Amino acid sequence: MKLVIEMMGGDYGFESTIPALIQFKKDYPEVELFAVGRKEDLAPVADYATIVDARDVVKIDATPLEVLRAKESSLLKAINTVLEAKADALISAGGTGPYLSAATLKLKLIEGVERAAILAPFPTKVKGKQVAILDIGASNENTASHLYQFALMGQQYAKAVFGVEEPKTYLLSNGTEDTKGSPLVLEAFKLCKEKALPYFMGQMEARDALNGEADVVVADGFTGNVLLKSIEGTAKVLMDSVKGAFKRNLFSKLGYLFARKGFKNMAETFDYKNTGGAILIGVNNVVVKAHGNSDPRGFYSAILVGYKMAKADIVHKVREGLQNVETK
Amino acid sequence: MKLVIEMMGGDYGFESTIPALIQFKKDYPEVELFAVGRKEDLAPVADYATIVDARDVVKIDATPLEVLRAKESSLLKAINTVLEAKADALISAGGTGPYLSAATLKLKLIEGVERAAILAPFPTKVKGKQVAILDIGASNENTASHLYQFALMGQQYAKAVFGVEEPKTYLLSNGTEDTKGSPLVLEAFKLCKEKALPYFMGQMEARDALNGEADVVVADGFTGNVLLKSIEGTAKVLMDSVKGAFKRNLFSKLGYLFARKGFKNMAETFDYKNTGGAILIGVNNVVVKAHGNSDPRGFYSAILVGYKMAKADIVHKVREGLQNVETK
Repeated sequence: MKLVIEMMGGDYGFESTIPALIQFKKDYPEVELFAVGRKEDLAPVADYATIVDARDVVKIDATPLEVLRAKESSLLKAINTVLEAKADALISAGGTGPYLSAATLKLKLIEGVERAAILAPFPTKVKGKQVAILDIGASNENTASHLYQFALMGQQYAKAVFGVEEPKTYLLSNGTEDTKGSPLVLEAFKLCKEKALPYFMGQMEARDALNGEADVVVADGFTGNVLLKSIEGTAKVLMDSVKGAFKRNLFSKLGYLFARKGFKNMAETFDYKNTGGAILIGVNNVVVKAHGNSDPRGFYSAILVGYKMAKADIVHKVREGLQNVETK
Repeated sequence: MKLVIEMMGGDYGFESTIPALIQFKKDYPEVELFAVGRKEDLAPVADYATIVDARDVVKIDATPLEVLRAKESSLLKAINTVLEAKADALISAGGTGPYLSAATLKLKLIEGVERAAILAPFPTKVKGKQVAILDIGASNENTASHLYQFALMGQQYAKAVFGVEEPKTYLLSNGTEDTKGSPLVLEAFKLCKEKALPYFMGQMEARDALNGEADVVVADGFTGNVLLKSIEGTAKVLMDSVKGAFKRNLFSKLGYLFARKGFKNMAETFDYKNTGGAILIGVNNVVVKAHGNSDPRGFYSAILVGYKMAKADIVHKVREGLQNVETK
């Protein structure tokens, strides 16, 4: 297996990516790694990866055209390395916009796929169970047909990664009744029914998205992004409040110390840095988007996600999955 | 001041509304109350309110036409009582759909208002500071012009209720840059700029909605509803986890006991039952929507919201506010 790692795109640059890469290679020595970035900075990884020199980082607000023209950028070099080395996965903590447009334009959409989506696994209140939510931000606007395809792709992911044989699939909406939803949701509902989407359970409200019932939750990219970020924001505000509450007096502080491990487990569950990263689903490769502010541990787990996705042969499964059903 | 209280619409019916009404009348004896519901069940409030007999509860999925035909329903009787008694506010825990359509059709929109919105105050991480978010679910679809008007109405609310003189106003979006957003958000951004909406700060991500920076956050009804419910859902999942974490051993249990008060404060802050209820803004009256599952305390605080809104003369202020600016 071959993984290509873009080393310079994240907020912490090499500080995060170098230790993560080295640790990963130690843990998975059989995997061939390519490290893309300024070669003089990448000397520490020389024993662990093939170094591909790249001089620049693409600007976060670069247009697709600017991205494609940035021949010396670590992003474009990394994507070209994927193509040349026939690598199994690409991992980067670079800005979402340029990353998505470059990956989509160069690696191409899987045949039959109209639009790629960003998918992330979220924790649920059922211990050990996760839910795949997509699209959480690849698009600003989607059609009903996009949502239908997102459902199909999400199901392939849930099967391959969660090991769920019959992934229960819902459309994110403002109510649970069949008649509830934006015009887009209602149209997508009709389409999923017409095409007899398997395991389709109808609409779901945002408050139930993390209750463990759904395996796949489908939204347009704008709404999915609002969902993602309100979960993050609420978790952050609450965590800060919890810490405050337990600083009230000596006894509560002591209690906090003794409960620290359980508390830490929970905080980690809800810290999306630890889920390692979202994937761009629908393109002809495993494309992992690590959080921009990934620390070494966060970036390590993003590499691990790429490894697992490649191992599960997710691209092949999405391709097969879409061939067996009518997608339009 | 006169308040009309629809007594039968919530999940717990009279069990919640009767104790809440009695307590409110004890606390605010100067306020005249009208209790609308089956008179045989309302005997306990005879000393505290004028009883208006009504036989039925409207079905939660009633169409606007069915609602208007349900002459014996507590909802329609309550609205008629508002009109006949020239009351200052209406409070109900009944289903959102019928409640909104009946209130809009019978009480009418304020002149110049194109669409009413549901507004709720949310807690923020800044102690004591709240943020008004609208529309959280009156519409399934909105135009840029609706969003612009929501911003104006939200500002009037923030001025009257929060006492903020220059309410910072944001559009909910999937990024903070001016160029980020759904087609609707981008159009609304342009409109707010063109019309020089005061205190307009541009786009805001969902993760920042509760960080205390914004006084007013504007969204279309579908997206706002997703935001509301994902905040609720995440808070619930996290609260359950926190409790679990502190049940690990004797010491952490003890610590929990000592921190209980701080913890309880926080849980209450994030329990939307305690914010009492959202209001329907844009109609010619104070219309409070209590949570369907309000307990007596929750319903009490919904009555209190109605009282405060009426006292702040919010309808008049919205009307004035919209007259002083170009709204279309």
